[in-house]
Amino acid sequence: MGSQKTTPLVAVLMGSKSDWDIMKEAVSLLKEFGVDYDVRVLSAHRTPAELLAHIEKLENSGVSAYIAAAGMAAHLGGVVAAHTIKPVIGVPIDSGSLQGIDALLSMVQMPPGIPVATMGIGKPGAKNSALFIVSILANQYPELSTKLVHYRKAQAEKVLGESLELP
Amino acid sequence: MGSQKTTPLVAVLMGSKSDWDIMKEAVSLLKEFGVDYDVRVLSAHRTPAELLAHIEKLENSGVSAYIAAAGMAAHLGGVVAAHTIKPVIGVPIDSGSLQGIDALLSMVQMPPGIPVATMGIGKPGAKNSALFIVSILANQYPELSTKLVHYRKAQAEKVLGESLELP
Amino acid sequence: MGSQKTTPLVAVLMGSKSDWDIMKEAVSLLKEFGVDYDVRVLSAHRTPAELLAHIEKLENSGVSAYIAAAGMAAHLGGVVAAHTIKPVIGVPIDSGSLQGIDALLSMVQMPPGIPVATMGIGKPGAKNSALFIVSILANQYPELSTKLVHYRKAQAEKVLGESLELP
Amino acid sequence: MGSQKTTPLVAVLMGSKSDWDIMKEAVSLLKEFGVDYDVRVLSAHRTPAELLAHIEKLENSGVSAYIAAAGMAAHLGGVVAAHTIKPVIGVPIDSGSLQGIDALLSMVQMPPGIPVATMGIGKPGAKNSALFIVSILANQYPELSTKLVHYRKAQAEKVLGESLELP
Amino acid sequence: MGSQKTTPLVAVLMGSKSDWDIMKEAVSLLKEFGVDYDVRVLSAHRTPAELLAHIEKLENSGVSAYIAAAGMAAHLGGVVAAHTIKPVIGVPIDSGSLQGIDALLSMVQMPPGIPVATMGIGKPGAKNSALFIVSILANQYPELSTKLVHYRKAQAEKVLGESLELP
Amino acid sequence: MGSQKTTPLVAVLMGSKSDWDIMKEAVSLLKEFGVDYDVRVLSAHRTPAELLAHIEKLENSGVSAYIAAAGMAAHLGGVVAAHTIKPVIGVPIDSGSLQGIDALLSMVQMPPGIPVATMGIGKPGAKNSALFIVSILANQYPELSTKLVHYRKAQAEKVLGESLELP
Amino acid sequence: MGSQKTTPLVAVLMGSKSDWDIMKEAVSLLKEFGVDYDVRVLSAHRTPAELLAHIEKLENSGVSAYIAAAGMAAHLGGVVAAHTIKPVIGVPIDSGSLQGIDALLSMVQMPPGIPVATMGIGKPGAKNSALFIVSILANQYPELSTKLVHYRKAQAEKVLGESLELP
Amino acid sequence: MGSQKTTPLVAVLMGSKSDWDIMKEAVSLLKEFGVDYDVRVLSAHRTPAELLAHIEKLENSGVSAYIAAAGMAAHLGGVVAAHTIKPVIGVPIDSGSLQGIDALLSMVQMPPGIPVATMGIGKPGAKNSALFIVSILANQYPELSTKLVHYRKAQAEKVLGESLELP
Repeated sequence: MGSQKTTPLVAVLMGSKSDWDIMKEAVSLLKEFGVDYDVRVLSAHRTPAELLAHIEKLENSGVSAYIAAAGMAAHLGGVVAAHTIKPVIGVPIDSGSLQGIDALLSMVQMPPGIPVATMGIGKPGAKNSALFIVSILANQYPELSTKLVHYRKAQAEKVLGESLELP
Repeated sequence: MGSQKTTPLVAVLMGSKSDWDIMKEAVSLLKEFGVDYDVRVLSAHRTPAELLAHIEKLENSGVSAYIAAAGMAAHLGGVVAAHTIKPVIGVPIDSGSLQGIDALLSMVQMPPGIPVATMGIGKPGAKNSALFIVSILANQYPELSTKLVHYRKAQAEKVLGESLELP
Repeated sequence: MGSQKTTPLVAVLMGSKSDWDIMKEAVSLLKEFGVDYDVRVLSAHRTPAELLAHIEKLENSGVSAYIAAAGMAAHLGGVVAAHTIKPVIGVPIDSGSLQGIDALLSMVQMPPGIPVATMGIGKPGAKNSALFIVSILANQYPELSTKLVHYRKAQAEKVLGESLELP
Repeated sequence: MGSQKTTPLVAVLMGSKSDWDIMKEAVSLLKEFGVDYDVRVLSAHRTPAELLAHIEKLENSGVSAYIAAAGMAAHLGGVVAAHTIKPVIGVPIDSGSLQGIDALLSMVQMPPGIPVATMGIGKPGAKNSALFIVSILANQYPELSTKLVHYRKAQAEKVLGESLELP
Repeated sequence: MGSQKTTPLVAVLMGSKSDWDIMKEAVSLLKEFGVDYDVRVLSAHRTPAELLAHIEKLENSGVSAYIAAAGMAAHLGGVVAAHTIKPVIGVPIDSGSLQGIDALLSMVQMPPGIPVATMGIGKPGAKNSALFIVSILANQYPELSTKLVHYRKAQAEKVLGESLELP
Repeated sequence: MGSQKTTPLVAVLMGSKSDWDIMKEAVSLLKEFGVDYDVRVLSAHRTPAELLAHIEKLENSGVSAYIAAAGMAAHLGGVVAAHTIKPVIGVPIDSGSLQGIDALLSMVQMPPGIPVATMGIGKPGAKNSALFIVSILANQYPELSTKLVHYRKAQAEKVLGESLELP
Repeated sequence: MGSQKTTPLVAVLMGSKSDWDIMKEAVSLLKEFGVDYDVRVLSAHRTPAELLAHIEKLENSGVSAYIAAAGMAAHLGGVVAAHTIKPVIGVPIDSGSLQGIDALLSMVQMPPGIPVATMGIGKPGAKNSALFIVSILANQYPELSTKLVHYRKAQAEKVLGESLELP
Repeated sequence: MGSQKTTPLVAVLMGSKSDWDIMKEAVSLLKEFGVDYDVRVLSAHRTPAELLAHIEKLENSGVSAYIAAAGMAAHLGGVVAAHTIKPVIGVPIDSGSLQGIDALLSMVQMPPGIPVATMGIGKPGAKNSALFIVSILANQYPELSTKLVHYRKAQAEKVLGESLELP
């Protein structure tokens, strides 16, 4: 895929295994688009050293972008972004009592200098994180561009079909 | 810059001229990084036809990514994203009474299928939108990668210098 | 109904088929009042071209008003309003994690120039969207005015009856 | 204007004289569109009897629609809507400490049965209340339809002109 | 009870029969304290005339205070307070999508001049509305003062007993 | 005033001297109605012993009701209510960063058993606290009832006069 | 443990027995670390005298720190802090309709002078209150320092193990 | 001060120099209590390596506790807490558009395992962070205990004096 590299690599990080139920939506889309990925549970707070070591390994492997999913005081995206210049996409998870508004603000309100591109809360955001990564990579990998156009078309047809099912 | 194209092109769109005071922070950073840009005031609601026509023109010019800034019921990012498969970055503006929380939710809570990668509210988000675009383009344009590393270093030195100014 | 036209036409649009469970409340009231309607699932983001085509067709059919229901970053009402001068009524749906406050703000906080008249979140808002449309049409169709007076009376009697059922 | 009546009549009500600074935006647009109006300061709480008497008088004068503006626990729209079957448009005012979110919820979250079509908070909402009323009346008064099309065009041109003023 | 009147009279009003599940907590406490009450479902919006007629009847019966419970855009307390100089206590109900924050703000944020003394959302507020009414009446009816002291004592003992049940 | 006592006594408590700018509105109304009052700055947190001592003294003086004003984590009303069975009215002050929403929730969300009747945030709530106290005392002191009716009338006339000043 | 005292003593207070389901997480951790504790249900509002008496007893026993858990208008932490100079840790409980945001603000927004160190809402906050107390005591009791290092290590290993369980 | 160490050491960290205006309140209190401190501007995002290096140096110097102040997506406290078992106190700063509610949630909603003891937003929180640190150290340093008792007394007298200044 593309002439520069055999395959782009996307790192998917989650702050807790309980985020997997949400994030498998992202991973399943990356798979569907044929984008290689590395998925890992690593906490910015509970495994800070291992997180930095993993980021270093990913950087050396030529990772193209990161997806970081976390709930509550969701610092994972910010910590990753502080250690890479690659694009970091944040997915706020609605764990905890506040339905994800805490995670959303903890991700999106990054100070100037270190951006985390934030998606919506929960499953819609998880799906969109994968699609957004594909749109980034599509600039370099024309096959992804074609696949994304097809995905959009299929998606539109699905919506149009829903009207027919209304009583 | 890069062998594939002479220069990457980023489209900066604002819903209102009053957003310029915020968005000039993004434009000034794009300039600093030597990224070509096209900046325009176009409203998803008040100039829908001209917006679509402009997006079509940009697509034909080989635009690489979009920054869409808007306040209140900030639909601009979503409308752009519906008409392109290129990455769309949203900057919520704190116009109106609700300090930008309305614009933030109107941008970030996109339904699954059409992502808008959202930055923080106001000036910090405007700056980060440009830096994020640079991080996307840096995958393709190695010069940008180098510049981004330098920018990060200068930024760190600036923070470190602030400690010395404390009484 | 009325001498100018055989029947007024109201367009009911939903961003997703999952909104139907809420919006059938509106449709059932339109039916009860004898107002002709066209109901369709069309997404501002996933089917933008088909949405504009459908609006154009409705405009040519002499549609009198629109009801647009959507959740999360609920842009549907705003996009419709940008393409018509007919009254557009918005119904925020409480899908997603934030209980509809995102959809409410995305609809009601329209910038000056393009209004979306917004109802409450979920079922109460769905019912009220139909009743509000009837109140608009009642200026032109005296039969609707009479029906609305009867509806109000029946509604009051229902409330009064509830006191009798208290222990 | 129109053959059925000489002129449509819109009632503009405010809960406090301090709302006038916001609501003059609505009144000025009604004037621009040549829609007759009656503007009055009447409080649902402090002048309930006079409010009902005024509504009765307006109903007898053949009023076509109401605009009700109020801040804080903004009940004015709901009280008016309880006494008329004409369309009632609510404008939440950002007086008080909570920037109008109290007024917004007090207006938009009407129970099923009695709708108040709510606009955005403050000046944008005030302007849109007038434009929405015009869109309602335009179904009956073709001149208003023509004027609204012109207004939209002028508005679009103003936005397009703003791009030229960017540095 | 007291020499001036045989018994104080408290009016309990609810905007909808569905509020009864919450408000029976208040009524049951009034009964426990031996305070006479009149409970009624009456909506400020759906039965405005009957509500005013009922208030008038209560005023003539020498009602001492009102409890008004409502959800969403909870105007009931404000409308009652506009028609009486007796104390009006508001209980915000958590019906609708927003968990009662809409009802709370619609009640508590009354404009200056017409107070509604607001309790917490839902059952705790319902109970407290009755206890607060008893504290008001206790100034006039010494028996209520004694009963309230006993109630507080029993309540404290219940809390103290809970420690013993901890593992 | 009344045959039972020469004059009712209302205690006004503030958590900080900076609340006086708001609370003088309440005190000025108590004066206007001829209600005797005792005003004091006492903090539930910084002067807990003196607060309890003062409450005890007030209880012995036959105080009729309390107004407690505080900002941020506004516990003053709850602490007072825990030590008296007299009615306690809370006024949330908009000091601090959160515009009084913290003070409002800290006051109104009292657990079942110990009510604090809460007014709106800031000046409107301060005024209403005094008026509400008067409505409580009016049950016992007929003169206050008469004065309150006059106050309401004057207030209505003031609102009605505002219409005449509109351009 | 340590030479100064045989064992540190931590007081755990809850406003209601229903908080135990959350707070047993804190108690179980204190037990795991071998920290002596006293757990009690005492309400700042319903048992104010017993609460003060219990605090006095604890102070005389040489208590080292307090954990105060409460929901809604959560004053318990503030009342304790007003009567001790020992560290007070607050745990906001998500009882009531507002998911604990009321309890969080009622605890964390303490006025200057009397701090309550606040943890997150619900179970995560309960666990962290115990761990934070241990970190305080570890300055004095080196064994706790060692145990905390082990706890952190075990916790990190648990997170690292979760990656292996991903499909 | 104390026999174990000459002086306790507290580290004060800020994410940006603009936080100094708030945090000088904390530093001035530490000075007043004779607690040694080290104050530094270090950003979790912009100077991650220098932050970790500084924490390591502080740990070797026998630091007793940390105060971490930051605005917006305030990760500083969480990052520090991930690298130490010493107590970490967070002060949310009200920079940015959202008045510090973003910083508050980003700090207080820490996941279980790594606590950040959070103070109120802005200056009140800054002062309380220092006082809370003193209460922690007072367990080990009896002089601090005495000073804290005096501070509380002076504070109470200041509040009591404010009553005398009321008109």
